[in-house]
Amino acid sequence: MERLDQQMRFVIEIDKLKGVLRQTVLAGPGRRENSAEHSWHLAMMAVTLAEHAPPGTDVGRVTAMVLLHDLVEIDAGDLFAYADQARQLRQEEAERAAADRIFALLPDGQGGELRGLWDEFEERRTPEARFARGLDRLQPMLANLTAGGGTWTEHGITADQVLAKVALIEDGSAELGAFARELISDSVSRGFLAS
Amino acid sequence: MERLDQQMRFVIEIDKLKGVLRQTVLAGPGRRENSAEHSWHLAMMAVTLAEHAPPGTDVGRVTAMVLLHDLVEIDAGDLFAYADQARQLRQEEAERAAADRIFALLPDGQGGELRGLWDEFEERRTPEARFARGLDRLQPMLANLTAGGGTWTEHGITADQVLAKVALIEDGSAELGAFARELISDSVSRGFLAS
Repeated sequence: MERLDQQMRFVIEIDKLKGVLRQTVLAGPGRRENSAEHSWHLAMMAVTLAEHAPPGTDVGRVTAMVLLHDLVEIDAGDLFAYADQARQLRQEEAERAAADRIFALLPDGQGGELRGLWDEFEERRTPEARFARGLDRLQPMLANLTAGGGTWTEHGITADQVLAKVALIEDGSAELGAFARELISDSVSRGFLAS
Repeated sequence: MERLDQQMRFVIEIDKLKGVLRQTVLAGPGRRENSAEHSWHLAMMAVTLAEHAPPGTDVGRVTAMVLLHDLVEIDAGDLFAYADQARQLRQEEAERAAADRIFALLPDGQGGELRGLWDEFEERRTPEARFARGLDRLQPMLANLTAGGGTWTEHGITADQVLAKVALIEDGSAELGAFARELISDSVSRGFLAS
């Protein structure tokens, strides 16, 4: 039962992701989103929007990738997407150290396999990783639209700053990129986002 | 773009699952768990514990199933696992009506496909559904162990009542069933659960 015990320690450890708060504000519950429910939402987006990934994309792999992509925040916390570069570099270092610790809770081979999925997401070289990263960018935009501005209003973000993030969505899926452009232009005309 | 628009309406609608509170108390954040983060935890358990499913189980299918199994709670709310039978019957009816509404937001074929996964989970006839249902039973036990009693203490649940739920876990995975029995006996000896 040693493998199973190690796996269960990992399953219990990752419960902490439910306590990591993101910037995103949820329209319904009226509170900040945590990284566990964010990861669930991305996984449901992977299932729902699978047909908009490039042909041949392994959507099961995308789903696993988005489920675990934020586990490192248990140690490193969440960083706002519009933070400056110095902060982003410090964050990357903290996240690598967190990945070393958290995936090592698992049995050897399995820890390496899941760590590999996390590295793949970070490196953004495969179609699966690019689609997953696109979903990760798109989801907060949907949340801000639903909340009537959300973090855009709170932090005085402009349409140009949001548009600069669309390349990452387009890189994962042309259709989702086009959808994001429409969403931004719609948000500007409804006054949710400064032009 | 009509299919994509329908899919995005579904993706926005399901955000509401983050506001559905369960009985389970989270040890870390010190609050009740919501159904979105519960679903994320089950999906991570499916990924992590895949090797304990019977040979030939399609774990990708299990993952999709647990991700969407609680969507009906957006309309029907969550029911405590130890509620009486009359309440459970009313809940089943409310959940079917919710499934009719929520999956119909999706394009026709896709709505039917995801509804099919939900029905499969409920009917518990395939190895995938049985493994998924087992995870759904096991996760609150892990939470109660971590919280030092949790809902067991709060509702005066006894070891016999918890043991009666183990058959459902064993039905999905012999190893996870054995693990659950040990967890219960450990919880009794630590005073987290009344014998």
